[in-house]
Amino acid sequence: MAALAVLLLVVAAVEGGAAWSFWPPAAGDEPYCLSWRVMVEANNAKNWPTVPPPCVGYVWRYMAWGQYARDVAGVADQIAAYAAQLAAGDDGLDAWVFDVDDTCLSNLFYYQAKQFGAYDPVAFKKWASKAICPGVPGMAQLFQMLRGRGFRVFILSGRDQQTLASSTAANLAAAGFAGYDRLIMRSAEYRGMSAVVFKSAMRMQLMEEGYRIRGNVGDQWSDLQGDFVGDRVFKVPNPMYFVP
Amino acid sequence: MAALAVLLLVVAAVEGGAAWSFWPPAAGDEPYCLSWRVMVEANNAKNWPTVPPPCVGYVWRYMAWGQYARDVAGVADQIAAYAAQLAAGDDGLDAWVFDVDDTCLSNLFYYQAKQFGAYDPVAFKKWASKAICPGVPGMAQLFQMLRGRGFRVFILSGRDQQTLASSTAANLAAAGFAGYDRLIMRSAEYRGMSAVVFKSAMRMQLMEEGYRIRGNVGDQWSDLQGDFVGDRVFKVPNPMYFVP
Repeated sequence: MAALAVLLLVVAAVEGGAAWSFWPPAAGDEPYCLSWRVMVEANNAKNWPTVPPPCVGYVWRYMAWGQYARDVAGVADQIAAYAAQLAAGDDGLDAWVFDVDDTCLSNLFYYQAKQFGAYDPVAFKKWASKAICPGVPGMAQLFQMLRGRGFRVFILSGRDQQTLASSTAANLAAAGFAGYDRLIMRSAEYRGMSAVVFKSAMRMQLMEEGYRIRGNVGDQWSDLQGDFVGDRVFKVPNPMYFVP
Repeated sequence: MAALAVLLLVVAAVEGGAAWSFWPPAAGDEPYCLSWRVMVEANNAKNWPTVPPPCVGYVWRYMAWGQYARDVAGVADQIAAYAAQLAAGDDGLDAWVFDVDDTCLSNLFYYQAKQFGAYDPVAFKKWASKAICPGVPGMAQLFQMLRGRGFRVFILSGRDQQTLASSTAANLAAAGFAGYDRLIMRSAEYRGMSAVVFKSAMRMQLMEEGYRIRGNVGDQWSDLQGDFVGDRVFKVPNPMYFVP
C-alpha cells in the first residue's frame, strides 16, 4: 500500500512537476508537514516562497510549543561538544562565524504575525529597525562560551548595513551578544547579491586577514555553502522562510 | 524555563563534552529522538557509532510505521520536480548518480535484527551477499523515470567490488534497477579509504569522461560532499547508521 502510494506519487510528480499541487495534504497534516520540515533542514526542499499553506499551523506549533527549542538545544549541544575538542591558538586567529536572523536573534513574532507568508522587505526592515528581537534560545550562552574558550566571533548578516547597522548592534547587545569581534553587514556594493555570494566574499576577507574559521553557524544553507565555509558548519533549524 | 534548560545543557556540554552523557533522554523519548533524527538529516550530528540507545525503539517505529516511507516519498517528489525542469542533452552525457545501500536497496531488515547496533563488516557482507534487500520505496520508479527522460544513471557504491559485485548486481536487478549505465564499486586500491575520497575519485572519472552530473542521490552526507558532487544533491533519510 505504501509502495503503491509512492508509485502514484512519483507518477503524479513526473506528470505534474509543480511543487505542491500533486500531493495536497489536508490542513494540519502533521506527518506530511514533518516530512516537509525535515526536507527543509536537509536542504532537499529549496526555493520555497512560503511555508506550504496547509503547514502554517504546524509550523506555528513547532516553533512555539517546544520542539523548536529542543531542536535548537540539540544543535547547541553539538556545537559545544565540537568546540570542546578544539583548542584556540595563542595567535587569536581561531574564529567562529554566526549569522544574525534566526541564528542569534529570533524573528518568530514577526513571521507569526505575517502567518509565515511571502518575504516583505519593507515590513521586515521596519520590524528589524525596532531592535526588539529576542535571542534564539541558548545562542548567547553558546556565543559567550566560545569567547571564553579564546575564539574570535564574527557576526555576518545579509541585513543592509546602511539602514540597519545601529539597530542590529543594539538588538544583539540587548540579547546578550556582547564582545563579538566585528559585525559584518551587507554594504551597498553587495546589494542584490545572493547570500552565498555576499557571505563567501566576506569569509574570504576573514581568511585573507589570517583567521581560521573553525565553525560556522546559520539557519540557512546559504550561510553554510559557498567558499571558505569553515571547518564545520551547523544548521540551526528554521522552517519559517528560505533565503537563496 | 526552556532558556534555563538550554543554559544548563550548554554548561553541561562544555564541562562534559561526551555526546550522550549529559542529556540522557528517557527510553522512548520521542521529542528528543526526533531532534536527534533531524540533526542527522541536517548533518549536524556526525560520527555517531550507533543509534543512541534510548532511541532504538523510536528509529524502529520511524522506519516501519510510515514516516520513513513518507519522508522518502517527499524526497522522490523533490527529485522528480527538479528533473522535470531539466532537459537531457542529445549527447547522452547528462547523468545522475545513485548510491546503493539505503538509497536503492534497503537494509532495514538487517539493521532491525541488529537493533541498530555498531557496524559489523563481516555480518553485513554476509547479509549483502544474500542479495535479498528490498528496494527503497519509490526509488526504482524514480530511477526508471530518469532513464526515460534521457539521463544516464550511474550506481556508485562503497561496497567491496571483489566480493559483492555479482550479488549487488543481482539484487539491483531483482529490485527493479535495470538499465543503469555502470555499477561502480570499491576496487582493491580504494579499500580503507573514506567514502568521500573514494566517491570523489569515481565522480572525477565520470567528469573526465565528459559526463555532467545533474543530480546525486544518497542516504549519507559522505555520498553528497567532496568533489564533483553534481549540480544538486538529494539526501535520502537514514537514521540507522553513519558512514564517515
